[in-house]
Amino acid sequence: VSTERMEAFSDGVFAVAITLLILDVHVPFLQHGALVLNAHLWRALTDQWVSYVTYIVSFIIIGIMWVNHHSMFCYVVRVDRPFLFFNLLLLMCIAFIPFSTALLSAYIQQPDSSGNSFMQNSHVAAAIYGAVSTATGFAFGALWSCAVLRNLIEGLDPVTARRMIPRFASGTVVYALSIVVAFVNPKLSLALFFLLAVFYAFDQLPAPVPAPSS
Amino acid sequence: VSTERMEAFSDGVFAVAITLLILDVHVPFLQHGALVLNAHLWRALTDQWVSYVTYIVSFIIIGIMWVNHHSMFCYVVRVDRPFLFFNLLLLMCIAFIPFSTALLSAYIQQPDSSGNSFMQNSHVAAAIYGAVSTATGFAFGALWSCAVLRNLIEGLDPVTARRMIPRFASGTVVYALSIVVAFVNPKLSLALFFLLAVFYAFDQLPAPVPAPSS
Amino acid sequence: VSTERMEAFSDGVFAVAITLLILDVHVPFLQHGALVLNAHLWRALTDQWVSYVTYIVSFIIIGIMWVNHHSMFCYVVRVDRPFLFFNLLLLMCIAFIPFSTALLSAYIQQPDSSGNSFMQNSHVAAAIYGAVSTATGFAFGALWSCAVLRNLIEGLDPVTARRMIPRFASGTVVYALSIVVAFVNPKLSLALFFLLAVFYAFDQLPAPVPAPSS
Amino acid sequence: VSTERMEAFSDGVFAVAITLLILDVHVPFLQHGALVLNAHLWRALTDQWVSYVTYIVSFIIIGIMWVNHHSMFCYVVRVDRPFLFFNLLLLMCIAFIPFSTALLSAYIQQPDSSGNSFMQNSHVAAAIYGAVSTATGFAFGALWSCAVLRNLIEGLDPVTARRMIPRFASGTVVYALSIVVAFVNPKLSLALFFLLAVFYAFDQLPAPVPAPSS
Repeated sequence: VSTERMEAFSDGVFAVAITLLILDVHVPFLQHGALVLNAHLWRALTDQWVSYVTYIVSFIIIGIMWVNHHSMFCYVVRVDRPFLFFNLLLLMCIAFIPFSTALLSAYIQQPDSSGNSFMQNSHVAAAIYGAVSTATGFAFGALWSCAVLRNLIEGLDPVTARRMIPRFASGTVVYALSIVVAFVNPKLSLALFFLLAVFYAFDQLPAPVPAPSS
Repeated sequence: VSTERMEAFSDGVFAVAITLLILDVHVPFLQHGALVLNAHLWRALTDQWVSYVTYIVSFIIIGIMWVNHHSMFCYVVRVDRPFLFFNLLLLMCIAFIPFSTALLSAYIQQPDSSGNSFMQNSHVAAAIYGAVSTATGFAFGALWSCAVLRNLIEGLDPVTARRMIPRFASGTVVYALSIVVAFVNPKLSLALFFLLAVFYAFDQLPAPVPAPSS
Repeated sequence: VSTERMEAFSDGVFAVAITLLILDVHVPFLQHGALVLNAHLWRALTDQWVSYVTYIVSFIIIGIMWVNHHSMFCYVVRVDRPFLFFNLLLLMCIAFIPFSTALLSAYIQQPDSSGNSFMQNSHVAAAIYGAVSTATGFAFGALWSCAVLRNLIEGLDPVTARRMIPRFASGTVVYALSIVVAFVNPKLSLALFFLLAVFYAFDQLPAPVPAPSS
Repeated sequence: VSTERMEAFSDGVFAVAITLLILDVHVPFLQHGALVLNAHLWRALTDQWVSYVTYIVSFIIIGIMWVNHHSMFCYVVRVDRPFLFFNLLLLMCIAFIPFSTALLSAYIQQPDSSGNSFMQNSHVAAAIYGAVSTATGFAFGALWSCAVLRNLIEGLDPVTARRMIPRFASGTVVYALSIVVAFVNPKLSLALFFLLAVFYAFDQLPAPVPAPSS
């Protein structure tokens, strides 16, 4: 079992999931599919600004997951069955993101009602978005731990490899904190998801990029 | 005709089918696309727990099919037209799974009515899910038989290769039994599908994993 | 510009188009998304038998197109811009098939009304399905002609290569005849599409299969 | 980090996005999913001619973007993190095109109302289609600039490589002009998008096609 076909299959799932995100950005229609009244389309499009933001945030999250998955395979030189199943677990989380994105996009702007403020729909939607992102981060850390502990990697000294496990874990903790923020202020948590995505884009620059010959 | 492009095409179909499963997990809405009343979203999401379970079960089924397809190609070193068509047959079954998943997810919780208890909608949906899984298992066994009988494999002694045919067949029989269970208790059959998926994940570990140089 | 990435991209489009076909097989619902009355699901599923048939026929058509595309690239060893655009034209036809399939599946069972019998909806749907298949066959022939005339192939003597052009053309003519049949009897034309798909599966067996070293 | 997996992932996104375009071509139905009255399907299909035109235009735009992306990687021989993120930015634009296509297809034929003529829905839809195309062109130019400035290319003398940056920029300006035309006459802008797509198909023929050994 080579890593190549596993990478090809994973690339396929990443590519489909990231492209399906656009299905959550809807063309505005009135009830029963009637066209929006003339001269009101621009307003209808700007009113759904949140669906563009969630599209961008989820695109960056999946994109960076792919970059890091890609980087991981500079070191992973063989795979075994447990590793394949941890990879399936990661892909199961990735493929779930279009759903949590659609949920967040639909409900984050619903006005809060009085009473029972904790379980407002916008809070629940943002918390689930955070939970799916946390699970994805957790699955990624588990995949890396599996690769390290089962000796599937090469070109990286064991100390450095192990030191990355708590780093992944701490990233997951930050994502988990965003779930708490979701219950306080859903839009703030959306901003936090965006910042986290950008942070991850830059943060891990030094470590996994060098070629396997290092 | 090399095996590479056939693997690439198959990987593509597997990847698209497995990712399309998320389209069967719906964001909760009231009739005509209205948002769920505030503070009721969590309840609406938990009410559709069955769609998460079917997502996970089908994801594992397709994922394991991919792992086994992948393992098979450690031995299959050339392809001919009949093999290509058996592969198409397998992919036709795989691509059908998002439909049977959506069917099961929609109907398994419909309460039984009195009278005509055999053809309750929940029974029919679970039976069809089982039938599609059985057909997929059958197509997989047929593909392997085709490879063995037409001498398309290398690196595996013929006796071992042939002995795997009845093993695949017996797996198909177990799946077929799940169709019977579906008519007795649909939710039990769902649990059975889950157990079968996990069982297949572990069962075939020893046989197809070793590299072709063995 | 190598043929590899072009094959990878084409494989992707083939794989997505063939898997999207399942989106045309619908879970039965009553109006407004209500569940079908209990014990009526089996009947509702059998009533839409035509959508399974069109799924299978279109799956075979796209699958065989892929097999032949695959076979063609045993000989095509370089690509140029015109070839890339003829390939895009073929992919544009392939990606259109899920639409013509959905159209046929929705309208082929609509009962004929009296008067204006020529333009019955079922006739029109079947004719358009035939027209898209004809266009796909035509694009495939054009792609092969382009490869032959621009000297992009190797491992095949020019006479054999050229002799295949009228063969592709004659196949296109047969598909075009199915458009005529569609106006006489749409269900007969569906049977014809099925037979044509199976015929193409076997017909071209001898020619393009041998390895490029022949 | 090799260019291969990045190309594979990009190919996947291009392939999914280009195939999802067909989801914007709808089978005609009356309200509530009822079939079109008999003998009226042909008329209903021709009435939605604009959705075929937008399908073709967007297919060509994404297809040519893929061809040029493909050509670019004849020269790009290594990638770094910034390049990966510019590539993600390009893919984010590409994956957005099915949305702008659906928007244009739905609204370009809505008749203009008197008053507030500037923000007619058809104008807005065409302008957004143009803006997404412009952003895609801009992202493509940025990706090339990134490759040139960060020394990721080989087989092309630096002067030629740099001279291509203003060429990409000028293409983006032409696309930006189409936004202005959209506010004057949306259908004219659709014709312009088509011409631009065909123009780009031929225009860049000489430059990026030669093999990297040139």
